[in-house]
Amino acid sequence: MEVTRTNFNELLDDISNAIKQASFIAFDAEFTGLEDTKQGHALPFDTPEERYTKLRKGSLDFLVLQFGLCTFKYDNKKKRHIAQPFNFYVFPKPYSRQAPDRRFMCQSSSIDFLVSQGFDFNKVFCEGIPYLTPTQENTLKDTIEQKHLLHAQFSSPAFTSPHGQDIGPNKGPIAIPDDQKSFINGIVDQISIFMEKSEEESLNLPVCNGFQRKLIYQTVRNKFSAVHLEAKKGEKKDRYICVTKISGEEEMKMREGAKQAAERAEIDDAVGFSKVVRMLSQSGKLLVGHNMLLDVMHTINQFHFPLPEEYEDFKSMTKCIFPKLVDTKLMAQTHPFKDHIPVSVLGDLHKTLSFKPFELAEVEFPKGYTNYNDNDKYHEAGYDAFVTGLCFASMKNFLGSFQKPPKDFVSPSSPLVEPFMNKLFLMRNFEVPYMNLNGADLTANRDHVFHMTFPKDWKSNDISNLFSAHGNVQIFWLDDTTALVALYKKENSKSAYDDLQVQKSNFTIQKYKDFLSSSNGEKNK
Amino acid sequence: MEVTRTNFNELLDDISNAIKQASFIAFDAEFTGLEDTKQGHALPFDTPEERYTKLRKGSLDFLVLQFGLCTFKYDNKKKRHIAQPFNFYVFPKPYSRQAPDRRFMCQSSSIDFLVSQGFDFNKVFCEGIPYLTPTQENTLKDTIEQKHLLHAQFSSPAFTSPHGQDIGPNKGPIAIPDDQKSFINGIVDQISIFMEKSEEESLNLPVCNGFQRKLIYQTVRNKFSAVHLEAKKGEKKDRYICVTKISGEEEMKMREGAKQAAERAEIDDAVGFSKVVRMLSQSGKLLVGHNMLLDVMHTINQFHFPLPEEYEDFKSMTKCIFPKLVDTKLMAQTHPFKDHIPVSVLGDLHKTLSFKPFELAEVEFPKGYTNYNDNDKYHEAGYDAFVTGLCFASMKNFLGSFQKPPKDFVSPSSPLVEPFMNKLFLMRNFEVPYMNLNGADLTANRDHVFHMTFPKDWKSNDISNLFSAHGNVQIFWLDDTTALVALYKKENSKSAYDDLQVQKSNFTIQKYKDFLSSSNGEKNK
Ligand SMILES: Nc1nc2c(ncn2[C@@H]2O[C@H](COP(=O)(O)OP(=O)(O)O)[C@@H](O)[C@H]2O)c(=O)[nH]1
Ligand SMILES: Nc1nc2c(ncn2[C@@H]2O[C@H](COP(=O)(O)OP(=O)(O)O)[C@@H](O)[C@H]2O)c(=O)[nH]1
Repeated sequence: MEVTRTNFNELLDDISNAIKQASFIAFDAEFTGLEDTKQGHALPFDTPEERYTKLRKGSLDFLVLQFGLCTFKYDNKKKRHIAQPFNFYVFPKPYSRQAPDRRFMCQSSSIDFLVSQGFDFNKVFCEGIPYLTPTQENTLKDTIEQKHLLHAQFSSPAFTSPHGQDIGPNKGPIAIPDDQKSFINGIVDQISIFMEKSEEESLNLPVCNGFQRKLIYQTVRNKFSAVHLEAKKGEKKDRYICVTKISGEEEMKMREGAKQAAERAEIDDAVGFSKVVRMLSQSGKLLVGHNMLLDVMHTINQFHFPLPEEYEDFKSMTKCIFPKLVDTKLMAQTHPFKDHIPVSVLGDLHKTLSFKPFELAEVEFPKGYTNYNDNDKYHEAGYDAFVTGLCFASMKNFLGSFQKPPKDFVSPSSPLVEPFMNKLFLMRNFEVPYMNLNGADLTANRDHVFHMTFPKDWKSNDISNLFSAHGNVQIFWLDDTTALVALYKKENSKSAYDDLQVQKSNFTIQKYKDFLSSSNGEKNK
Repeated sequence: MEVTRTNFNELLDDISNAIKQASFIAFDAEFTGLEDTKQGHALPFDTPEERYTKLRKGSLDFLVLQFGLCTFKYDNKKKRHIAQPFNFYVFPKPYSRQAPDRRFMCQSSSIDFLVSQGFDFNKVFCEGIPYLTPTQENTLKDTIEQKHLLHAQFSSPAFTSPHGQDIGPNKGPIAIPDDQKSFINGIVDQISIFMEKSEEESLNLPVCNGFQRKLIYQTVRNKFSAVHLEAKKGEKKDRYICVTKISGEEEMKMREGAKQAAERAEIDDAVGFSKVVRMLSQSGKLLVGHNMLLDVMHTINQFHFPLPEEYEDFKSMTKCIFPKLVDTKLMAQTHPFKDHIPVSVLGDLHKTLSFKPFELAEVEFPKGYTNYNDNDKYHEAGYDAFVTGLCFASMKNFLGSFQKPPKDFVSPSSPLVEPFMNKLFLMRNFEVPYMNLNGADLTANRDHVFHMTFPKDWKSNDISNLFSAHGNVQIFWLDDTTALVALYKKENSKSAYDDLQVQKSNFTIQKYKDFLSSSNGEKNK
């Protein structure tokens, strides 16, 4: 189901019901970019904490443009899942002058990738659903309520009292400046004639600026009791005041009330997609993603709260917002799956799970929902969410085959799934495959890793030759003149280091942990 | 004429000719955003230098997505201009793994504005013309040349000598690691069979990684003389080597030469739209823009050189790249135009110039070019460039009406245009209407301007009431608790300041120049 600002409100109940009835929910997001390398590349030897810090600084300025959600509920009789996939287009169109006008980053290669997959940028920019974080929503609500209060005050008798000025600078009317007097008098005359002679219901005053509108409000409210004023926008977005005849105080209140209610409803609309994320959070349901760390970070940051600086705070915030997360990429790379799954890229995983020893879970789609069984649309977030959920359903069932007696169906809340709970896959990381939201992270020894600097014309084989007496190495280039080098044979760490320490002439070698502490020192400067 | 990567190379000669024949050229650009407010808002009291610094820090991360160019040449017989408008879509698609993968900023409201004007983002992202600055181009060329040198070396006899290792780590072949030996032997066998028995012209080796490809290159070159190797990309962008039978050394050189030429041509293609900007610069022609400061800054920064930190360097760089610039918005707001032109927004200016005392210049379009006379497409860069040029043509002719005897036609190089030369309009700036590239900038007295801080609940009238004894004020909010306040009656500057100095309880007041020096101090921390 494609969801844009056009049909979002209409579908909100369906979405809410689908979430409530789900036994688990899969999701996926598409971004305007992945990594701003100014912040330092992710490295294979990063601790989970270092990785978090780099992603937080280097990835959050990119934007989620598409959010795929697929709810799965199990039909016990038919022995199959009912899946409801939603493909949301989201975009922070500033809905009013007070609303935040977000700046965001794009990465050319990501944009290029998305268009090559048929992503429709015109649609997302035109019809994307807006959103506000709770903080943005509250700020806007406060602004509106203060404005309403202020206007109530302006139209109250206290305001029109000649002693108004004594109450303090905030309370009194503004003196009409000399150069505005004839303009305001003209307006008053125009309204007098309209009230006495015109048969029209309403009168549009000439376009004027905010200060002039303010003067008009205070003067007219003071002089006429049977009129209602409302700012309107003309064709060219220029603003003017519309004057309407009313029967009296009663109708005035009603009209003011209606106007204020409309303003509140406008903010409610602007909360938009954040409502879905709030529902997800409040449901407490199991959320499944594939390689989901960035998705989780963006979802919280864009729709909930700015991510905290401290890694431990991020862990507790995430557990609080999404208490149950499972990452299918981590599952695929872990026992007992890993031996049967050569490549864990989503498309390959899907294929692998279609054959023995696995059995793809059966899925059915209610009417009105895209039948993704027959429609391969990789990199459409809704489809990717569906495939992720399908892979999860199939993999968890596979865990049942080791039971005695074997079970066909494993519930998502089964203890068999527990070992995978709240562990988020870490991309390209050596020996620390996941971030553990449930407690302390794994640690890994990095004694076999060195940081090297060397002349600009060096190539990979210059480096490998240096180490040749100590076995093969893996090289991770940092830039033209620096690299991290890891020995395959860890037992040679000490001998290699001692050897090269002596040899060094046009290069330097440093233990990885010494490099980290010195470069952290630099960063904190 | 719409120009995308599809027809760009084809049109390059036409564009070059149009530029060469032009008597002046108008241009306009569309950006992904205008201002990153993190860097501090542009203020009405900014000096040109302060404005430059703010724009440089706050605007250059946005991207030019569309560049409109319209050349005008005068047909003396027909007494009208021939205009050739080009509407270029540009996008920095990374053309290879070595090419820069640009990160850029977008502003939601600008994106929203562009889609509301019908801007086609899918088209620009898919078919945008790429570009490289001269520095990027040179870096890429160096990389390629170094690679070619290296490969030449690898296939030379020196390389295959057993003493290769003595020449230094960079020069020798890599030892084949144990775990790669059987893979490489397999490849050698495969090629032997292919060379002896196969009737096919070429053989595709299995997909393998860069290190394996390197080993294959060095081994195969060493063992076979009648083969040519070339890396190719498979469907899924995975890389494999294609082996072709060749007649001998001669054909080998030819094929290598062809491959290298293709790689050089690829870079030349990637220079793309920068070629047009280089032509513009080299033409030395008069360039006309409407409110062109940001356009000029972006054009230089995106296609030529990163803008310098120092304002004076920017001025000289700009004069060197674009020696003759005229801004129609500045003209419209300057004597003798200003009295006849109430609104200088491009569309309004165009309308105003269609009536007495002005006379719209006549323009004709060659075949194949959009007839913009009948097609109002505001905010398409090509159209805006055309209208800008049209307004310039009409305004310069108007200057002729004051001559004795009056002249219908004024040449763009006439001394009458000279007073407007190299002065770039400054938006929303008080009393310093332009940046002067020809010399020192105007200065303005800011003694009547104050910086104030106050409690969060203050509104504009709290501030104006404070100053009421000294006349009206204009207020420029900086944030919730600070504002700049300017007196209308400059002669009251001293009395107002002295008065409020004494009164102040819950607010502070500071002279603008003191505020600047203290806040500059903060920024430089
Ligand atoms: N005195 C008074 N001022 C108002 C009232 N409504 C709006 N204003 C002020 O008048 C100015 C123009 O408001 P409006 O025409 O609604 O357009 P806005 O600029 O979009 O808020 C703002 O400074 C408002 O705070 C009102 O009922 N009474
Ligand atoms: N010895 C040798 N190495 C090459 C040659 N061509 C490319 N290489 C190296 O082999 C590796 C793979 O190159 P290639 O297959 O062209 O793919 P690339 O990764 O896109 O450069 C790179 O490290 C190249 O520098 C060659 O002719 N001889």
